[in-house]
Amino acid sequence: MRDSILILNGPNLNLLGTRQPEVYGRETLNDIEAHCTQVGDGFGIGIDFRQSNHEGELVDWIHEARGKHAAIIINPGAYSHTSVAILDALLSVDLPTVEVHLSNIHKREEFRQHSYVSRAAQGVICGFGSLGYILALQAQAAEIKSKKQQAMA
Amino acid sequence: MRDSILILNGPNLNLLGTRQPEVYGRETLNDIEAHCTQVGDGFGIGIDFRQSNHEGELVDWIHEARGKHAAIIINPGAYSHTSVAILDALLSVDLPTVEVHLSNIHKREEFRQHSYVSRAAQGVICGFGSLGYILALQAQAAEIKSKKQQAMA
Amino acid sequence: MRDSILILNGPNLNLLGTRQPEVYGRETLNDIEAHCTQVGDGFGIGIDFRQSNHEGELVDWIHEARGKHAAIIINPGAYSHTSVAILDALLSVDLPTVEVHLSNIHKREEFRQHSYVSRAAQGVICGFGSLGYILALQAQAAEIKSKKQQAMA
Amino acid sequence: MRDSILILNGPNLNLLGTRQPEVYGRETLNDIEAHCTQVGDGFGIGIDFRQSNHEGELVDWIHEARGKHAAIIINPGAYSHTSVAILDALLSVDLPTVEVHLSNIHKREEFRQHSYVSRAAQGVICGFGSLGYILALQAQAAEIKSKKQQAMA
Amino acid sequence: MRDSILILNGPNLNLLGTRQPEVYGRETLNDIEAHCTQVGDGFGIGIDFRQSNHEGELVDWIHEARGKHAAIIINPGAYSHTSVAILDALLSVDLPTVEVHLSNIHKREEFRQHSYVSRAAQGVICGFGSLGYILALQAQAAEIKSKKQQAMA
Amino acid sequence: MRDSILILNGPNLNLLGTRQPEVYGRETLNDIEAHCTQVGDGFGIGIDFRQSNHEGELVDWIHEARGKHAAIIINPGAYSHTSVAILDALLSVDLPTVEVHLSNIHKREEFRQHSYVSRAAQGVICGFGSLGYILALQAQAAEIKSKKQQAMA
Amino acid sequence: MRDSILILNGPNLNLLGTRQPEVYGRETLNDIEAHCTQVGDGFGIGIDFRQSNHEGELVDWIHEARGKHAAIIINPGAYSHTSVAILDALLSVDLPTVEVHLSNIHKREEFRQHSYVSRAAQGVICGFGSLGYILALQAQAAEIKSKKQQAMA
Amino acid sequence: MRDSILILNGPNLNLLGTRQPEVYGRETLNDIEAHCTQVGDGFGIGIDFRQSNHEGELVDWIHEARGKHAAIIINPGAYSHTSVAILDALLSVDLPTVEVHLSNIHKREEFRQHSYVSRAAQGVICGFGSLGYILALQAQAAEIKSKKQQAMA
Amino acid sequence: MRDSILILNGPNLNLLGTRQPEVYGRETLNDIEAHCTQVGDGFGIGIDFRQSNHEGELVDWIHEARGKHAAIIINPGAYSHTSVAILDALLSVDLPTVEVHLSNIHKREEFRQHSYVSRAAQGVICGFGSLGYILALQAQAAEIKSKKQQAMA
Amino acid sequence: MRDSILILNGPNLNLLGTRQPEVYGRETLNDIEAHCTQVGDGFGIGIDFRQSNHEGELVDWIHEARGKHAAIIINPGAYSHTSVAILDALLSVDLPTVEVHLSNIHKREEFRQHSYVSRAAQGVICGFGSLGYILALQAQAAEIKSKKQQAMA
Amino acid sequence: MRDSILILNGPNLNLLGTRQPEVYGRETLNDIEAHCTQVGDGFGIGIDFRQSNHEGELVDWIHEARGKHAAIIINPGAYSHTSVAILDALLSVDLPTVEVHLSNIHKREEFRQHSYVSRAAQGVICGFGSLGYILALQAQAAEIKSKKQQAMA
Amino acid sequence: MRDSILILNGPNLNLLGTRQPEVYGRETLNDIEAHCTQVGDGFGIGIDFRQSNHEGELVDWIHEARGKHAAIIINPGAYSHTSVAILDALLSVDLPTVEVHLSNIHKREEFRQHSYVSRAAQGVICGFGSLGYILALQAQAAEIKSKKQQAMA
Repeated sequence: MRDSILILNGPNLNLLGTRQPEVYGRETLNDIEAHCTQVGDGFGIGIDFRQSNHEGELVDWIHEARGKHAAIIINPGAYSHTSVAILDALLSVDLPTVEVHLSNIHKREEFRQHSYVSRAAQGVICGFGSLGYILALQAQAAEIKSKKQQAMA
Repeated sequence: MRDSILILNGPNLNLLGTRQPEVYGRETLNDIEAHCTQVGDGFGIGIDFRQSNHEGELVDWIHEARGKHAAIIINPGAYSHTSVAILDALLSVDLPTVEVHLSNIHKREEFRQHSYVSRAAQGVICGFGSLGYILALQAQAAEIKSKKQQAMA
Repeated sequence: MRDSILILNGPNLNLLGTRQPEVYGRETLNDIEAHCTQVGDGFGIGIDFRQSNHEGELVDWIHEARGKHAAIIINPGAYSHTSVAILDALLSVDLPTVEVHLSNIHKREEFRQHSYVSRAAQGVICGFGSLGYILALQAQAAEIKSKKQQAMA
Repeated sequence: MRDSILILNGPNLNLLGTRQPEVYGRETLNDIEAHCTQVGDGFGIGIDFRQSNHEGELVDWIHEARGKHAAIIINPGAYSHTSVAILDALLSVDLPTVEVHLSNIHKREEFRQHSYVSRAAQGVICGFGSLGYILALQAQAAEIKSKKQQAMA
Repeated sequence: MRDSILILNGPNLNLLGTRQPEVYGRETLNDIEAHCTQVGDGFGIGIDFRQSNHEGELVDWIHEARGKHAAIIINPGAYSHTSVAILDALLSVDLPTVEVHLSNIHKREEFRQHSYVSRAAQGVICGFGSLGYILALQAQAAEIKSKKQQAMA
Repeated sequence: MRDSILILNGPNLNLLGTRQPEVYGRETLNDIEAHCTQVGDGFGIGIDFRQSNHEGELVDWIHEARGKHAAIIINPGAYSHTSVAILDALLSVDLPTVEVHLSNIHKREEFRQHSYVSRAAQGVICGFGSLGYILALQAQAAEIKSKKQQAMA
Repeated sequence: MRDSILILNGPNLNLLGTRQPEVYGRETLNDIEAHCTQVGDGFGIGIDFRQSNHEGELVDWIHEARGKHAAIIINPGAYSHTSVAILDALLSVDLPTVEVHLSNIHKREEFRQHSYVSRAAQGVICGFGSLGYILALQAQAAEIKSKKQQAMA
Repeated sequence: MRDSILILNGPNLNLLGTRQPEVYGRETLNDIEAHCTQVGDGFGIGIDFRQSNHEGELVDWIHEARGKHAAIIINPGAYSHTSVAILDALLSVDLPTVEVHLSNIHKREEFRQHSYVSRAAQGVICGFGSLGYILALQAQAAEIKSKKQQAMA
Repeated sequence: MRDSILILNGPNLNLLGTRQPEVYGRETLNDIEAHCTQVGDGFGIGIDFRQSNHEGELVDWIHEARGKHAAIIINPGAYSHTSVAILDALLSVDLPTVEVHLSNIHKREEFRQHSYVSRAAQGVICGFGSLGYILALQAQAAEIKSKKQQAMA
Repeated sequence: MRDSILILNGPNLNLLGTRQPEVYGRETLNDIEAHCTQVGDGFGIGIDFRQSNHEGELVDWIHEARGKHAAIIINPGAYSHTSVAILDALLSVDLPTVEVHLSNIHKREEFRQHSYVSRAAQGVICGFGSLGYILALQAQAAEIKSKKQQAMA
Repeated sequence: MRDSILILNGPNLNLLGTRQPEVYGRETLNDIEAHCTQVGDGFGIGIDFRQSNHEGELVDWIHEARGKHAAIIINPGAYSHTSVAILDALLSVDLPTVEVHLSNIHKREEFRQHSYVSRAAQGVICGFGSLGYILALQAQAAEIKSKKQQAMA
Repeated sequence: MRDSILILNGPNLNLLGTRQPEVYGRETLNDIEAHCTQVGDGFGIGIDFRQSNHEGELVDWIHEARGKHAAIIINPGAYSHTSVAILDALLSVDLPTVEVHLSNIHKREEFRQHSYVSRAAQGVICGFGSLGYILALQAQAAEIKSKKQQAMA
C-alpha cells in the first residue's frame, strides 16, 4: 500500500481564485488539488485533500490522520492566528507537519504575522502561492523516503 | 425579484431575552427578526435572518451570500473579538456589511472593545439594543437604493 | 414646548465637504444641519446644531445643555481620542448621548480607534458619513418618545 | 428525580491517554467518565459526560444545560485560551460552574496561562490529572446539597 | 501689600456640587472659594480663585501669575491626564505649586491615575474632597512664611 | 509514625471570618484548621497548620518541612503575587505542594491573577472558600498513598 | 477616653534625617513623632507612632489597630510599591487611612510612581516632607470629629 | 502680490527667553519674528507670525491659511504630543508644512519624543533653537520657488 | 548567457556542520553549495554562493547583484533579526528574493521569531535544513522561467 | 587652515538616485557631495564626504574625526534604528553633530521612527531630501562661526 | 583596628549545597563563609557573614553597617527581584556595595533577570558560583586599599 | 604549550581613557592589555588581546578561537545590546566565556541593561572598570585549572 499525505485547508480557502486575487492568485482549490495529486503520483504518494471552514472539523480530520497518513500539510488560513485547538491536535497526533501560506504573512497586518500552528510544524513555507503546496509536498516526500530507507537499513 | 439582506447573529444570541437582560434587554431574537422583516418589507427588501453558535457555519453562510444577497448585517457576538475567519469571509465576498452590537462594547471589558469584524465593515452601530438592527437596515436600504439609482442613471 | 437635541461637532468638521472627501464625503456641515433639522421636524424635535474647534467651548456647550435639551448627539472629531474633559462634561450633565463618526474609525490609524467619549455614550455609530447623524437622531427620538410614554403612563 | 451534572470536555481530550502522556497521564476519557459516574452515584447525582472538538457544539451543550442540569464541570482544553463564545455561554446559563485542567497551566507556555472561562467559573482546579474531575465533582455535590438544604429550610 | 495665591480649577469643576456627588461631594465651587478666602485671610494671604473649561485659558492664567502671586494651587481636573501645555506653563513660571484632586485618583480608571501636572508640583493632595484645598493652602502658607523668614534673616 | 502535611497560611488570613466576608466567607482560620485536622485524621495523616504575616517566617517554615512533612498545602495570600522568596523556598525543599486560594483570583484585580507560587505547585485550587483546603488535602492524601504503595511494591 | 491615631512608618524611615537629606529633609523620625504628638494633643487625639523595616510587622500592627485606633496614617516607604500584604491588611481592618510620602513620588523613578497602598487609602499626600504628616493628621482629625458629630446627632 | 508663510507658535512659546533658558535659549519670540521677517523679505516672502496657548485657536488659524498663505511653519510646543486636532487641521488644509522644535525632543522625556504633527509635516527640524525657524523658512522658500518655476514652465 | 542566482549566507553559517548539529544538521556549507550548483545546473541556472559574517559585506553583495543576477536567495542568519540595512539593500535592488532558515525560527527564542528581511522577501522557507535551499531554488527557477515566457510571449 | 566638516552616509545611500526614487528623490550621492562642497566653499569650510555600508567603518571614521574635523553631519540610514555602536562613537568624540534623514521618518514604519543616533545629535533634520544636507551645513557653519567668535573675544 | 566587610545572604541561601545543586553547586553557605574569612584574612579584612530569609532583617543589618563596616557584599537571592526596601537601605547607608549571584541570572526566567539591588551596587558579579564571593571580596579589598592610600596621601 | 585566553573588546573601546572618563575611567586599552598579560603570566596563561569596531570581525575572531584558545573573555561594548551574530558565534564555538562591562550597565539607559551576549556567557562581571578584566581572568584561570585537574585525575 502506498503512503499518503493529508493536505488540509482552513477557512475561506474554498473561495480561492475568486477572492482578492491580487493577494492570493487566480487558481482555485481544485486546481491545487489536481496539481498536488499529480505531483504526489510522481512520488508514489496518495493525496487526501480537504477543506473546511470549521475549526472543530479540522481538529477531527487531524485526529483521523493517525495511523492513516504518513504526513500532514496544512494551510490553516485564518485559524493560524487564533487556533490553539489545531495546534494541540497536531501536537497530539505527532505526524511530520508542514505549514503552508499562499501569501507572505510577514508582509501583512500585525495579527497575521503570528501563527500558533508553526509551533507544531517541522517547517513553514509562505509567499509562493500554490507553488508552496508543491514545495511542501517535496519536503514531505523526502522525509517519508528518508524514513523508509532508515527502516529498511 | 426584490433585493434581500442577510442578517447574521453569532454565538449565544439565540438566548436573547433570557440572558443578562440588564445588559442585552428583554426582546428575543424572534422579536428582532419579526421587526426586521416588517421594516424590510417597508423598503421592499427581503430578510434572511439566521443565528449560529458555530464560527464555521457563520463563515459558510457568508460565502453563500455572494450572488444571493445585496448586503450583510452581522452581530458577530463573541466572535467579534476572536474570529479572523469571519473577517476573512466578509473580505472575500465583498458585500456591503454593517456590524451591530446590542451593547456599547466600548463600556465593557477590555477584550470586548476590539472587533476583528470592524475591519471588513462599512459601518458599526453599537449600544442601541435591538434598535441597532433597524438602524443598520436603514443604512443598508439607503446603500442599495443609491446603487440602484446609479445603475439606472 | 417641543423637545430639542443638541448636536455638537468637534474640530475641523467646519471644513467638511472640502477636506479629504475620499474619507469624509462631499457634504458640508450646513448640508448636514439642514438635513437634521428637517428630520428633527418630522419627529417634532428641535435641533441646536453647533461646531467648535475649541475643546473648552464644547465643554461649555455640554454644560449648558442641562435643563435645556433632551439629548445630545456628538461627533467629537479629533477630541474623541484625546479629551477626558469632554468625557467628564458628558458624565456630568447625564443626558442621553449618542456618539457619531463619519468614517469607520476602526479601519483607520491605531490612535483613532479609541474614543474617550464612548465611555459616556449610550451608543456609537460610525462609518455611515452624514447618514450617521440621521440614524443617531432616530435613536434619540425613539429614546425621548419612550421616556415620554413612561412619564405619561 | 435525581440531580445531574454536565461534564464537558473540549478539543483533543478525546485523544487522552494516547497523547503526550508525560503531560496528561495515561487514563482515557472513558476511564474518567466511568470514575465520575461511579463517584456521582455515591452522591446520588447523575453525570452527563461529553466531549467535542467544536467550539459551537460546546456552546450548544451549555445552552441545553439550562433547566436540565444542576451544575457544569468543564475542561475547555485549548478553548480556555481563545473562546469568548464559551465564556458568554456559561455567563448566559448562569449555572454553578467549575473549570478543570489536567495539567498545571501556570507552568506551561505564556498563552496557556490565561483562561477566558475562569471569568465564568466559581472555582478552578488544575494540575491534578484526572483526580481534578473528582475534586470538582465533590465541590459541585457540596454546592448542590447546600442549596437543597437551604431550599428545604 | 499682602501675598496672594492663585487657585486654579480645571474643566467641569464649575458643576461641582451638582455632578456625581457620590464621587465629588455636594459643596459648590463657590463654597470652596469662600472657605479658601476665609482661611487665606487667617494667614494674611489673598486668594485669586478661578475656573475655566479652556486649557489655553488655564495656561494664560498661569503665565499671568508670575510677579503677581506667591504660589499656585491647581486642581487641573481632566486636564491632569492630558495636558502637557499646563505642565509646561507651570514649569515656565516656576512658582511653588500644589496639585489638588477632590477624589483619590489612584482608585479610579487607569487613565485617571497619571497626571502630567504632578511633574511640576511640589506636592500632591488627593482624596479629601474640598478639605484638600485647605490643606494645600496651609502647605503654601507655610512655604511663603518660611521664605519670608529666610529673606528677613 | 503517621505522615503529616504542613498547611501554611499567608498574610491577613488570621483575620478570616472577620474580613470582607462577601469575598472570603465567614469561617475563621480556626474553623478551617479544625476541619482539616478531622479530615486528616480520616486519612491517618497529621496536620501542622500555621499562619504568618511575615514572608521570611513562611520561608523558614517551608525549610523546616524537609524531612518532617510528607507534603505542603499553601494559601500564600497576598504573597502569591509578590514573593519569589516563597517560590524559591518551595523549589528548594521539593515536597509535593498544592496551592489554595479562597476566592477565584482570576475574577479579581489584574495583579491578583498572577501567582509566583504556582510555578512550584503540583496543582492549584481556587474559588471554593474553605472547601478548597479539604480538596487539597484529598489530593495530597491520594499522592501520599500512591507513593507508599509504590514504595511497598 | 480620647481617640487615637496609629501612625505607621515603613522601611528605612528610621534613618530619616541622616539619609539623602536633599530628597527627604533633615528632620529625624523622632522630630516628626514629637510634632505629631503635639498637634494631636491640640485635637485631643492620642498618637501611636511606630516604625518597622519588616513588612509582616507592619501588617501585624495594622491588624491590632482594629477596635483600638480611630484611624491610620501610613508612610509605607518602599513597601508602597511592592506590598499587596499591607494593602490587604488595610482593606481588612477598614479604618479611615491616609497615605503620606515625604517626597513627590510622581517625580521619581517609574517604579516609585505606583503605590498598592493607595487603593486602600481615603486620601494621599506627597511631596511636603514632614509637613505631610501634619496635613494628614488634620484630615484624620476632621474625619473623626465629623463622625462623632454624626453619632451624637 | 507676494507669497506669504504662516508661522504658528504653540503654548508657552510667548514666554520664550524668560523660561528655562538652559533648554530654550534667551531669544524672545519677538526676536525670532523679527529675524524671520527679515529673512522672509530676502526671499520676497511675507511672514504672518502668531502665537497662541489655545489649541482651538491654532486650529482656527490653520483653517484660515487656506487660499491665503503658501505654506505653514509650525512649532506646536506641548500640543505636538497631545493634539490630534492640530494634526487633522494640517491634513485638512493640505499646505506644505514644516515642523520646528527649539530643543532636540529626542533627548528629552519619553512623552516629548512623539509628535502627532509630524504625520502632517513634509519635514521636521529640531534642536537648533531659533535657527530652526530660519532653516524651515529656507526650506519653504525653496519649495515655493520650485512650485512657481514648475507653474511657469 | 545563462541566468544566475546569488545565494547569500549570513554570520556563523560558515561553521555549519560543526555547530549545534542537533539544531542545524551535519551538512557543511560547502555541501550545500555543491548541491545547489548541481540543482541549478539542472535548471540551466548558475549559482553564486557566498557567506559573510559582516553585515556591510552582505549589503555590498546585494548591491552588486543588480544587473548581474536574476534573483536572490538569502539565509541572513542572526542578521535576520537585527539588520534594517540588509532589508533596505534588498528593497533597493528590487530582485525577487527568497528567505531561507535552516531551523523553524517560530519554535525558537522570542527574538528569533521576527525577521526584518521577510519584509523584502517574496517568500520565506524555514525548518527544512539544507533542503530549504533547494526548495528556494525551485521557487526562483520557476519565477525566472515564468518571466522569460512572459518576455517571449 | 580652514575648518572642515565630516559628512557621513550610512548603508544603501550609495544607491541614491536609483533606489525607491518616490521616497528618496532622484539625486545621486555624488550630486549631494558636489552641492555640499560648493556650499561649504561659500562658508570657507572644507567637506569630507563619505559613505559606507559597514557599521564598523562608520565607527572608525567617527573616531578619526577627532582633532581633524570641526563638526559631523551624519545620515546614518538604516543604522539610525539599530546601531548603539555609532551612538557611542559620536558620544566618544564629542563633536557637534547634526543628524539628517532624506525622508520624514515619522511618517514611515514604526521601527524607522526611532533613532539611537538622535541621542548624540545637537539637532535633527528630516524630510527635505538632499536639501537637508545643506540646511545641516548651514547650522554647523553657524555653530563653527559662533565658536570662533567666542574664542577670539 | 582592621577593616571589615559585611557579607549578606538573602532568602533560601541557608539551604545552599542541598538545593538544586545543578543550578547552585554543592558548597554550603558555611563553606563559603570559611573561604571568605580565609581570603579576607589574607587582605587583613574581617568578614561579618550573615544570612536571613527576612527582608526586614536584611534591611536592619544594612542599617547597622554604617560606621561599622567598610563595605557590603550582598547576594540578595530572591529579594533581588522584588525588594525596593533593600535597595533603599543600601542607598541610605551609602557604603561601597557589590552584588553577587551564584547563577547567571540572565540565562534564567524573565523575572529573575531584573534586580532592584543593582541600582545601588558599584558592580555586579553573577554566574561564578561561590567563586563570585571571592571575586567580590577582591574588588572590595582593592576599593578599601585605594581609599586608604588616598586618605594617607 | 601553555593555555591561552582570547580577550575581545568591542566598538569604541579603542578610545578608552579618552572617552567619558567619568563613566569609564582613565586607563587606556593598552594599559588593560598590559595588566592582563602580566596577570595571565602569573597563571601561566597566554593572552590574545584584541579590539574591533566591526561586528563581523568580532565574529570572525570568535570562530578562530576554536582549537586555539582555552577560553574567551569579551567586553562586547555596544554590540552587547544589539548583536545576535556575536551571541551565535559564542554559542557555536562553545568555549567557556566571561562577559565584562566597565560600567554597571544596570544603572544606565534602559537599552543598555539588556545584553544578548549574556545568554552565551558562563558569568557576567560589570561595574568594576578595568579590574573587571582581572576578575574575569581569575575566573577563567580557575576554570582552566579545574578542567586540567579533572583531565589528569
